[in-house]
This record gives sequence, structure tokens and C-alpha cells, in this order.
Amino acid sequence: MLTYKDFEEKTIVRNEIFHGKIIDVVVDDVALPNGGTSKRELVFHPGGVAVIAVTEENKMIFVRQFRKPLEKVILEIPAGKIDPGEGAQPELTGARELEEETGYRASTLEHVHSMYLSPGFANEVLHLFHAKQLQKVENPLPQDEDEVLEVYELTMKEAKAAIADGTICDAKTIFAIQFWELLELKRRNSRA
Amino acid sequence: MLTYKDFEEKTIVRNEIFHGKIIDVVVDDVALPNGGTSKRELVFHPGGVAVIAVTEENKMIFVRQFRKPLEKVILEIPAGKIDPGEGAQPELTGARELEEETGYRASTLEHVHSMYLSPGFANEVLHLFHAKQLQKVENPLPQDEDEVLEVYELTMKEAKAAIADGTICDAKTIFAIQFWELLELKRRNSRA
Repeated sequence: MLTYKDFEEKTIVRNEIFHGKIIDVVVDDVALPNGGTSKRELVFHPGGVAVIAVTEENKMIFVRQFRKPLEKVILEIPAGKIDPGEGAQPELTGARELEEETGYRASTLEHVHSMYLSPGFANEVLHLFHAKQLQKVENPLPQDEDEVLEVYELTMKEAKAAIADGTICDAKTIFAIQFWELLELKRRNSRA
Repeated sequence: MLTYKDFEEKTIVRNEIFHGKIIDVVVDDVALPNGGTSKRELVFHPGGVAVIAVTEENKMIFVRQFRKPLEKVILEIPAGKIDPGEGAQPELTGARELEEETGYRASTLEHVHSMYLSPGFANEVLHLFHAKQLQKVENPLPQDEDEVLEVYELTMKEAKAAIADGTICDAKTIFAIQFWELLELKRRNSRA
């Protein structure tokens, strides 16, 4: 097994390209472990949280919104960026986004995975939670001013149809539906 | 149901920030559907391909490599960016990356999903394939010059342990292991 030293790409020079409100962009000149050099274009992102939320009627909760990078309206599970100060407790971000976006509150948010979405160029991490015992809130937190969205609740069959027709097309949401399917199958097997 | 017009964020001005070898970065001033304006920091990426490859011994194939954005060595399923000219046929990228990175060739690459990894700020799409009937190649395509990597084959149990200890920590790879688990469970149920 090769050690860390055999892999490490040491930064020779870091060129700061962009310092934005959400992302920072740099280009590093790196020394490769095999002796050569290369450039690495890197995006730094504060990370986000997403919530797998299935209602008592066994429907998953989605939000429909416009995504500028895709120039498309798509269906996703509730999610959002980590705000300053929430970093150490991503479940707070999850609870906030769930309530703001859908009007639901959960008794607990169970941690599923924390995963890097594009480790080739970005350090963005997504903390994924599974919401337990959902309840509608009477006066939920207001939605963000620059977000326009609609809430949908879909059965497994409807969710799979939305994947097939491209309305659901992002990784965390397809992951969540696969997670739900696996959970259902395990439950059914344990009952049998 | 709201229509596309109720969601669309029209670009007022696009500010080009960076034109890189892999990513382009722009900041758009957008008109929000509710009347306000906002800024959208956007990353354009050529997209990539990843391959779920399970050997005849029922082990999944992983590559271990350094990821500069994370400053870490991690285990991932074989994957790579789409090269110019491969865009229309991502399965060519999949076949190339599988052979270059692992020395395996598949009889077919079955399309699993094409999904956006970070639709909030990036248009990067990942085409995920399931490799069927793997065979070791005697003289495989050489690895990229600026890539240093090691190939691993893990059982399901070992793969789950690698998720638990953080060696496997990226979305496509955790997705692939969940896909594998679901597939195994469905197979077992159909036999029962």
C-alpha cells in the first residue's frame, strides 16, 4: 500500500481567482508525487445539508425550484447551504431548511452520511439526514427572499417516474430515493 | 402548479470571472420571478463518468488517490472527466477510465443514472454506469500522467467499513455501494 507521501500533491503557488459570497476559486500549481507538476483548479464551498423526509402517508417531500446553473426547474429533497455559525451542527441547518422550505418539523434528524459531491475540484460536503416523525408546523419559518419554490409529496412510484422523465435529476435526490427503496425492502424482509 | 415563468431567474448581466482548463466561473446578476434581483455564482464543468464495477468474486473495484480540494487520499469508484469529443457518448469515457485506472474491461456498460452533483452552483453532470462481465486486460491503456493511483477490490463488508472510517467519503462512491446493496437484496428476494 502506498503511503500518503506517495500521493500528496504539494502546493507550490496558490493563485487566488475569486472570492465570492458562496464560493472561492483558486488555481494551485502543484508538485506531483511522480516528480512532475500540474495545475489544480479548486472551488471552496461552505457545504450543505439535505433532508430525507417521508410523511406518515409514506410520501417523500420534495421542493420544486429553478436552478440557474441548469436553467431548469427541478424537484429536489429539501436542502440548503450551511450558514455561518451552523458549521459545527449541520442538523440545525437541516431542521431550518426543512421548516423554511416545507413547513414540516421532525422529532429527530438522524445522520445518514456526510459526503463530498465533487472531490475532483470542489471541497463541498453534503450532510444528509433522515427526518423522523414529521409534523406540519402552523407558523413555519419564512422562506428565503431570493428563493421561489413549491412543495410536493410523492409516492415511491411517482418519485421513480420523476427520475425517468428528468424532473428529478440531481444526485442527492436520486440517492435519497434509493435510500428509501432500500429501507422499504429491508423493512419488508424483516417482517417476512 | 406554478409554471416555468413563475420560477425563471433571467440573467441581466453575466460577469465572466475565470476560464480554466476544467472549469469556467461566472457571476450572473439575475432578475427574480418575485421582482427582486440577486447574484448567482456559477461553475461550468464538462461533466464526468463513473463506473460501478463488481468482479466475479463479488468485490467492488475502487481506486485510491489524492484529492487536492480535500487534501486527502480517498477511495472512489473509477471515474473521470468527459474528454472533448466524448460528450455525446459518455459510455466511451466510462470504458476508457475503467481500463486506464483499473486494467479491467467490461462486456457492456449499463446506464444507471445521469445526475447533477451540485445543482445550486454547478452544471456538472455525472453519468453513472454499471459494468457487466469484467475481464482483466493484458495491456491496458496507460494511466494519465498527472494521476497517481492504486486499485483496490473490496467486499461489501469492507466497503461499508471504509465508509464508516471515512476512507470512502464521496457521493458517487457511497451511491454505488448503496446501489450494490439494493441489487444484492433484490437478487436474494427473487431467489427466495
